Amino acid sequence: MTNLIYLDNNATTKVDEKVLDAMLPYFKDEYANPSSMYDFARGSSNALKEARGKMKDFFNAQNEKEILFTSCGSESANTAIRGVLNMNKNKKHIITTKVEHPCVLNLCQTLQKQGYRVDYIGVNSNGELDLEELKNAVCDDTAIVAIMHANNETGVLFPIEKIVDIVKTKNPHTKVFVDAVQTAGKVPIDVQAMNVDLLGISGHKFHAPKGVGALYVNSKTLITPLIVGGHQERGLRAGTENVPYIAGLAKAAELAVDNLNYEVHEVKRLRDKLESSILKTVFNARLNTGVANRVPNTTNIGFEYIEGELILLHLSDIGICASSGSACTSGSLEPSHVLRAMNVPFTSIHGSIRFSLSKFTTEKEIDYVIEKLPGIIDKITMLSPYQDELNALRKLKA
Amino acid sequence: MTNLIYLDNNATTKVDEKVLDAMLPYFKDEYANPSSMYDFARGSSNALKEARGKMKDFFNAQNEKEILFTSCGSESANTAIRGVLNMNKNKKHIITTKVEHPCVLNLCQTLQKQGYRVDYIGVNSNGELDLEELKNAVCDDTAIVAIMHANNETGVLFPIEKIVDIVKTKNPHTKVFVDAVQTAGKVPIDVQAMNVDLLGISGHKFHAPKGVGALYVNSKTLITPLIVGGHQERGLRAGTENVPYIAGLAKAAELAVDNLNYEVHEVKRLRDKLESSILKTVFNARLNTGVANRVPNTTNIGFEYIEGELILLHLSDIGICASSGSACTSGSLEPSHVLRAMNVPFTSIHGSIRFSLSKFTTEKEIDYVIEKLPGIIDKITMLSPYQDELNALRKLKA
Repeated sequence: MTNLIYLDNNATTKVDEKVLDAMLPYFKDEYANPSSMYDFARGSSNALKEARGKMKDFFNAQNEKEILFTSCGSESANTAIRGVLNMNKNKKHIITTKVEHPCVLNLCQTLQKQGYRVDYIGVNSNGELDLEELKNAVCDDTAIVAIMHANNETGVLFPIEKIVDIVKTKNPHTKVFVDAVQTAGKVPIDVQAMNVDLLGISGHKFHAPKGVGALYVNSKTLITPLIVGGHQERGLRAGTENVPYIAGLAKAAELAVDNLNYEVHEVKRLRDKLESSILKTVFNARLNTGVANRVPNTTNIGFEYIEGELILLHLSDIGICASSGSACTSGSLEPSHVLRAMNVPFTSIHGSIRFSLSKFTTEKEIDYVIEKLPGIIDKITMLSPYQDELNALRKLKA
Repeated sequence: MTNLIYLDNNATTKVDEKVLDAMLPYFKDEYANPSSMYDFARGSSNALKEARGKMKDFFNAQNEKEILFTSCGSESANTAIRGVLNMNKNKKHIITTKVEHPCVLNLCQTLQKQGYRVDYIGVNSNGELDLEELKNAVCDDTAIVAIMHANNETGVLFPIEKIVDIVKTKNPHTKVFVDAVQTAGKVPIDVQAMNVDLLGISGHKFHAPKGVGALYVNSKTLITPLIVGGHQERGLRAGTENVPYIAGLAKAAELAVDNLNYEVHEVKRLRDKLESSILKTVFNARLNTGVANRVPNTTNIGFEYIEGELILLHLSDIGICASSGSACTSGSLEPSHVLRAMNVPFTSIHGSIRFSLSKFTTEKEIDYVIEKLPGIIDKITMLSPYQDELNALRKLKA
């Protein structure tokens, strides 16, 4: 694909060449099992140790022992939530939000069937969390609050420090797990400043490969392993360590820190350019969030009275990758649970598109999208059965 | 390490260059999330589909839907065992063996604390399973029998077809999970001929990377997911699919089938050469198993009255990698639970060494070990505090 314009970086990202370079030695010469005792295993065991140190720095954790390597963001979340619940068998209450990723939402639904009570906190029309509802939900037997750092579909950031403060003020024993899969590499992550107990990330959202993640577990927080077996990860995650990917994850984390300034300024500038241009030139475009408190790379725009799948099809035809909702729920024809929770009007919920940029996105690519998208939307809009409503909207915007 | 002689292939293996080549496109150009709907995702979604087909062939499964991709052998085992138990809540009995891998043994111990009854079937001095004890253990509420295909420390094969027959005759509803981590690539695997319900493997034991595994689940066997979340793997294993490693696993499986004849004849010939030479030239060497019914690449030899760690240290000094017990239990000074279950005499249990070969092992390497090992053992034996016993043994063997 020579003309590929990849604007779906919240679904997954391209592996950075430097990350691949960091992994290759562990596919080739340094293949020992890091648990082995002979000299040959030092290469891989040192790689593990070094990677753990880098991830400690990435999270600003206090201790390398607070870092667990996992196989993905979903495993991180499942380990965190089940791990805390298993250690607090007498507490049967969980708090999460209506806009979480399926790995938290579906797990919570499973746990409800097993006798847990779950409160799903709502958001306002900008996608911002109802902190009052959260506060009221925390009770004596709330074992854990599982909450995302930023939403995958909208990019809206939740105020984690404030949330932790609210939770801990009402119940200092309640643990807080943060799903930071969509913020790693996009905004700084500081587990001490956030004062969180557990925090999970996924490598493939910031230019490491698919199939590796990490979980920060504060040294005061006890969990059980999800995958029981060998002594790896201090008994908290069995399985021979995926040394190449772990080395790659650490490299990606390092690169992400170096790139943060670029992300916050340049990626944001391109995102803003794309967003404001679309909102200006397409009369039936509508920003589904407020402009503030978002990660720098994401915009979610509703195109009123038309079908998102049709937009994506036309974009795909000219090499532009974007998405409606998350890849993890794709295939479903139901509108996004996130946009529903935000009460996005039915007129635009079906035609909502997420564009998510990365450090590899160029201005030329954004200009191309800006050039092509209005014509595509126009063509689809002409076929919409809602021409009366569209005419009214056109007049209103003119 | 130019002089590396790697005889620890049951701990992990070198990634085959052809496997790395099969993975590289998915690190580079074909990085789309396979769940995405645009054209660009076809490369990765086709890779997934193709890999699933190859794994179906590798297992001789009936249907591609019977294949789940996981992150390791431990995850495969945890998913299988917990998955079956969750689907059979009223059955509280598990059968396994005393010589399983920690991922099964430690999980069973965890389950015992949660109210399950577990029978650990014993083995004889050759490491062969007590089938009578197994038969007697199966009862009405036996949910699952979890059993390895070959032991990681000794290479001893269990007669799976016979085992399944015994189990199903007594209770046709009991599910059988086979941990085939140590047989994939070494002997043929045929889930239909074996008549098993679930079977797990790990890529890094047969020249795919660390961090990928597969689980066969017969279409008549229902399980719950261990990692709950997105729709991936038909809802049975959440998390964005690790496309590069999955493509690599499928390639490794293909190569393993092509290599089986070489494994069964040539690798076995080298293993037998190493083993018989050591047993002939080292008076205090003792084969810890019978010679029959083993995978072709493994030998486990006890060196009487000396310490295994010291042997390994000397071997490591000249670039030879071998192990005492499994890497997953290394760091522990306790003698191997496998050799204890076999009642290996205390005189040799501490000095037991596993040599495990691969298709990359050369005759030159084996000849070098044969040349060097007797001198090393001699040197260590001279320092043993058991000189009287050694002299008696020397006389006996002369």
